[in-house]
Amino acid sequence: MKNFRPEVLEEYCKNVLTASGVDEGCARTVARSLLDAELTGVSTHGVSRMGIYLQRLNAGLVSRENRICIVRESPSAVVIDAGNTLGAPSARFAMETCIRKAAETGCCFATVRNSNHFGTAAFYTRMAAERGMVGFACTNLTGKIAPYGSAEPFMGTDPISVAAPSETIPLVLDMTPSVVALGKLILAQKLGQPIPLGWALDREGNPTTDPAEGRKGSLIPIGGPKGSGLAIMVEVLSGVLSGAGCGPHLHDLYEFDAPQGVGHFLGAIDVSHFLDPAAFRSGLSQMVREIKGLRKAPGAEEILLPGERAARSAAAKQETGIDLPDPVYEELAELGRPYGLTL
Amino acid sequence: MKNFRPEVLEEYCKNVLTASGVDEGCARTVARSLLDAELTGVSTHGVSRMGIYLQRLNAGLVSRENRICIVRESPSAVVIDAGNTLGAPSARFAMETCIRKAAETGCCFATVRNSNHFGTAAFYTRMAAERGMVGFACTNLTGKIAPYGSAEPFMGTDPISVAAPSETIPLVLDMTPSVVALGKLILAQKLGQPIPLGWALDREGNPTTDPAEGRKGSLIPIGGPKGSGLAIMVEVLSGVLSGAGCGPHLHDLYEFDAPQGVGHFLGAIDVSHFLDPAAFRSGLSQMVREIKGLRKAPGAEEILLPGERAARSAAAKQETGIDLPDPVYEELAELGRPYGLTL
Repeated sequence: MKNFRPEVLEEYCKNVLTASGVDEGCARTVARSLLDAELTGVSTHGVSRMGIYLQRLNAGLVSRENRICIVRESPSAVVIDAGNTLGAPSARFAMETCIRKAAETGCCFATVRNSNHFGTAAFYTRMAAERGMVGFACTNLTGKIAPYGSAEPFMGTDPISVAAPSETIPLVLDMTPSVVALGKLILAQKLGQPIPLGWALDREGNPTTDPAEGRKGSLIPIGGPKGSGLAIMVEVLSGVLSGAGCGPHLHDLYEFDAPQGVGHFLGAIDVSHFLDPAAFRSGLSQMVREIKGLRKAPGAEEILLPGERAARSAAAKQETGIDLPDPVYEELAELGRPYGLTL
Repeated sequence: MKNFRPEVLEEYCKNVLTASGVDEGCARTVARSLLDAELTGVSTHGVSRMGIYLQRLNAGLVSRENRICIVRESPSAVVIDAGNTLGAPSARFAMETCIRKAAETGCCFATVRNSNHFGTAAFYTRMAAERGMVGFACTNLTGKIAPYGSAEPFMGTDPISVAAPSETIPLVLDMTPSVVALGKLILAQKLGQPIPLGWALDREGNPTTDPAEGRKGSLIPIGGPKGSGLAIMVEVLSGVLSGAGCGPHLHDLYEFDAPQGVGHFLGAIDVSHFLDPAAFRSGLSQMVREIKGLRKAPGAEEILLPGERAARSAAAKQETGIDLPDPVYEELAELGRPYGLTL
């Protein structure tokens, strides 16, 4: 275990990416998104992703340049072609464009096609909340969730994030429509443990407690047809409306057959076009206080609002630094060596 | 059981409402929304609601006039005060305004405050889909769902609907963030049957199999913190952004203490600002074909997409008419008698 200041890790990631030939602005945004994930406690989407990002860049499957361009623009709609640029800069550009245009019109949504893995969706919605707006972000990914009634995966573990500004920390929901993330099956398999019924189906579509069978099969959506329907709607917005495609027409981050070709859908709703922003923030803070003041369920230590755990984690890690497990540290340090960069 | 042509039932409902003094346009929209629910197989939101609507009108808790007004307007944002008008005309006006403005700018969202029960959310999103747009609608309601970690209800069984046009029937998701609707507990209690664990908590926040205890407690959200977070975000959009308020500040449809004061949040995203509409519809139809072509899970007769069952029900009932159970028929017939209207 090694401990790092967040800004040191971020600078290192940026430097490795630029040294490998990535456009400096893109490198800075990817590094920022990875560190944001580390700080908010989502280390699965943190610096451990540097390895696969570099492998794909080196394999020529992702562009090192910034090829993001606006294909079509209306007062409150933007169509972006990422040109196979890294996912985080593409999605960040989309959200920045939406924030700028929503300030004029009240709201704006953007589709992004020909894109790549964009990290956590909350990174983009929090940008909107910091500017006094409600942020919305989702992306599609290769099929891992079976539509309700089916035995085969089609929808990805597509994150859906919504964020809203309050007087203190923003409210930030960031969820996948599956009961658990694929990572939980991978971990259980590594530990030789069974998984609870209700997490995954095997290849035949039967509920399974074997994580290996679940990985070959599909993840179960939350609430049956409800989570399945939510995931399908994310595919409609990120995949169909963007023109990116979905399901079998996308490519996996960990397979080296083709560019991922995923699509995103992001947007911002400017609170000030609806309500005095101070009234909104105070209304939201009141709701939060009322929820936190409810009686706790047996066994619950505290009632946590969406994004609260993440905000606490970020505040703590800004103080204490970020602990990297040895294998993560070693892989990350290795990535800089060809360029004479040390961590 | 009595069978009626949908248009006969709709005309009767409209006539009863206008005879009781309700503005004709409002009466027409309420009747339309109730029949839409009957046709799409959501009879819980159908003509059986006429009784409670009339009781609230007669108690002076809902306005008979159309008092809906636009309080504030930007190119892509509309703030509506329903002035305690019936919910369906208020939400329909909001969606029509969004559709008109989204055609200009690409998208538009509206908040509605001082409103009432609006029926099914799908009624409004389907309006957008019929005009080649993606529709979004949600509303808040009095607290029935406990926030994750709490033993007390706060969020309503707030419906979330998203609809999108395809080459055939639109894709229409309309879901509440609870595992089941309150109606399932009411039915189980009536039948003297236990409910499965996972549907409801008792007043202390413990899982219960007793429907009576569950009704005094709270409904469990889908996916634990995920469904809880979704419901909280609906409260933010429908309750905080609209200025309507939420949780304990709202009033129940079935209590006669005060106007409901609920808020809605609706919007339309015009596909034609993003993509050639024909390309969108064909992309969506392709996705639907691919999903329906997947292997079925054991026990599943068919893979149904969101809105498919509703569309089939509507097509069938246009042919066969709508069957009303005797108690529903008798109550409905009774409502017209004071005005000399017969069913």
